[in-house]
Amino acid sequence: MKLTIERSVLLKSLGHVQSVVERRNTLPILSNVKLEATAEGLALNATDMDLDIIERVSAAVERPGATTAPAHTLFEIVRKLPDGAQVEIAFEPEGSQLTLRSGRSRFALSCLAVEDFPSMADGVFSNSFTVAAPDLRALIDRTKFAISTEETRYYLNGIYFHSTTSSGVNVLRAVATDGHRLARVEVGRPEGADNMPGIIVPRKTVLELRKLIEETGMGVTVSLSETKIRFAFDDVVLTSKLIDGTFPDYERVIPQDNDKLLRVGKKLFADAVDRVSAISTEKSRAIKVAISPGLLTLSASSPDAGSAVEEIEADYDSATIEIGFNSRYLMEILGQIEGDTALFAMADAASPTVIRETDDGAALYVLMPMRV
Amino acid sequence: MKLTIERSVLLKSLGHVQSVVERRNTLPILSNVKLEATAEGLALNATDMDLDIIERVSAAVERPGATTAPAHTLFEIVRKLPDGAQVEIAFEPEGSQLTLRSGRSRFALSCLAVEDFPSMADGVFSNSFTVAAPDLRALIDRTKFAISTEETRYYLNGIYFHSTTSSGVNVLRAVATDGHRLARVEVGRPEGADNMPGIIVPRKTVLELRKLIEETGMGVTVSLSETKIRFAFDDVVLTSKLIDGTFPDYERVIPQDNDKLLRVGKKLFADAVDRVSAISTEKSRAIKVAISPGLLTLSASSPDAGSAVEEIEADYDSATIEIGFNSRYLMEILGQIEGDTALFAMADAASPTVIRETDDGAALYVLMPMRV
Repeated sequence: MKLTIERSVLLKSLGHVQSVVERRNTLPILSNVKLEATAEGLALNATDMDLDIIERVSAAVERPGATTAPAHTLFEIVRKLPDGAQVEIAFEPEGSQLTLRSGRSRFALSCLAVEDFPSMADGVFSNSFTVAAPDLRALIDRTKFAISTEETRYYLNGIYFHSTTSSGVNVLRAVATDGHRLARVEVGRPEGADNMPGIIVPRKTVLELRKLIEETGMGVTVSLSETKIRFAFDDVVLTSKLIDGTFPDYERVIPQDNDKLLRVGKKLFADAVDRVSAISTEKSRAIKVAISPGLLTLSASSPDAGSAVEEIEADYDSATIEIGFNSRYLMEILGQIEGDTALFAMADAASPTVIRETDDGAALYVLMPMRV
Repeated sequence: MKLTIERSVLLKSLGHVQSVVERRNTLPILSNVKLEATAEGLALNATDMDLDIIERVSAAVERPGATTAPAHTLFEIVRKLPDGAQVEIAFEPEGSQLTLRSGRSRFALSCLAVEDFPSMADGVFSNSFTVAAPDLRALIDRTKFAISTEETRYYLNGIYFHSTTSSGVNVLRAVATDGHRLARVEVGRPEGADNMPGIIVPRKTVLELRKLIEETGMGVTVSLSETKIRFAFDDVVLTSKLIDGTFPDYERVIPQDNDKLLRVGKKLFADAVDRVSAISTEKSRAIKVAISPGLLTLSASSPDAGSAVEEIEADYDSATIEIGFNSRYLMEILGQIEGDTALFAMADAASPTVIRETDDGAALYVLMPMRV
């Protein structure tokens, strides 16, 4: 293998693939990136056995070949090369080191046999459809905060994507929940997604994918097998295992009959929650929301710190209600609301509250109350 | 106590004093800031028993008085109030809570008796002189990186300031060392500093002081007692215990006769060290520097990662030498060099190297070699 590549091209791609590589690995080869030079250019491949990324970049290939080298070290080296540099990469088939030259720098990196590099790309991918990148970004951005990090409930450690209908419209829906809050966001269903099964995409995959499609203008092609999902866009193919579990019947926890309706300025409310929560204990983060016609009163108290009260105006004309929330969860949901107004639909202090942008917006949030 | 104060004024001052307050305290009152309202305005006071800060700000005081309240909580609240807000603070002498009102927010904070707040300001301060703020910033900025963090050698956990002469000129000198590297920087001796004793100012004091004088245009008045140092500037008085120990005779470790002289471009060298060190093991960070007439060759190797070599041009005409350095220490010193060129004076691979900007610059650095 021998090739020359522009530093900026190599750096960008190494930045993508090294992000998948874990810092500590039980299998040494998982610390490496696979480099494969062909007539078409250079392919970089990294994996953690659950998630696999392949990116193709253009390079002047003098001699095809393949090997694997330490991903983080290679990234560090290329990052530190001067802007505009040309990088020459070479590997002798019988050798054990990759050499990298640029200007008056020369590096030799220990390699591991390319044959031992695990491949995740195999498998039959049946369902396939293309989703617009802005839609995919929205589905992820507006739900990812609610993904559970509790490993015992592994089936909540990702975003649940499925096809369904919403008010008679065919949609692709993303749902995430940790049992305390739930986020449900939908976009128009892409062509070809009608028969997709419901799938749970793991947190790490979702976060890596989101970074990678930040600037993607085109569509993202999604392919599904029984156990895997593949995203293809730009020059990247991301393949991930799906979470092998059943996502709970989330519709059951979304109340339909909450009739105490509150409209409140999103920023006004979020700022007040933020201030009042300065007093709530670090552990519970609980704040109390008392709502009477026209007036919302936020309060918090902690045996150590003291107490806080703040009033804001609100559009409300149902019976007076007092309800407790985790202030951080409440602020996170308010941070997701588009537009100036948040709509709260409540039942009582013990039942979940529904939060939306408008009565029929693409996003719906559910927040469990706290005893205060 | 009752007063009204602008949010921005209170926030800035609370930002200063809360920084001295430790996150965890065995004495609860050390988590608090002392607030004292007099006809002159509001004084804020915080301490960790080693370091004490008092800042005076203007406020409309309606009723004088004093109490103490949780510093971090108070800072958080004021930080979250809207820009331009007016803050009303009140405390009843017989009460146990401070009330803070702003707009429609109302906070009550638990107080602790002001009589129990420890005072560090006492003591007779004899020596006193005024040092220009830019000089004090330079003394700290260029030496602080070399302060030891090893608690067993407590007398190295700060910067040693003393009066001396340098090439016949009266100077105020700052020295810091951790046994691996040493930084020695001097400025013209301020009037009145002739008879100051040598003092070791603790790391935390140095770092807090440095933040506080960032924008100070005027002089900083320094006063000394047997055990304490006091810095007065703007509306702040910072009082600190001195480290009760003897700073080593650092002049003995600065070689006078190193005759292998190297001149090298600072940035060129630092960038090359940075690149080559991408290979050196995380633990040792060792790199090898081989210097022969006209040519400097940097190299590093690690059993896991591989090896790196880089050549740069250098002005050198002594005998060829090979010497090992800790790459991070070397980059830190190069980062301190003003101007484009660094001057290295070496003896051999086992003896300390002297690094300067010019033959007679205000700063001198010593770096111990490593076996490589």
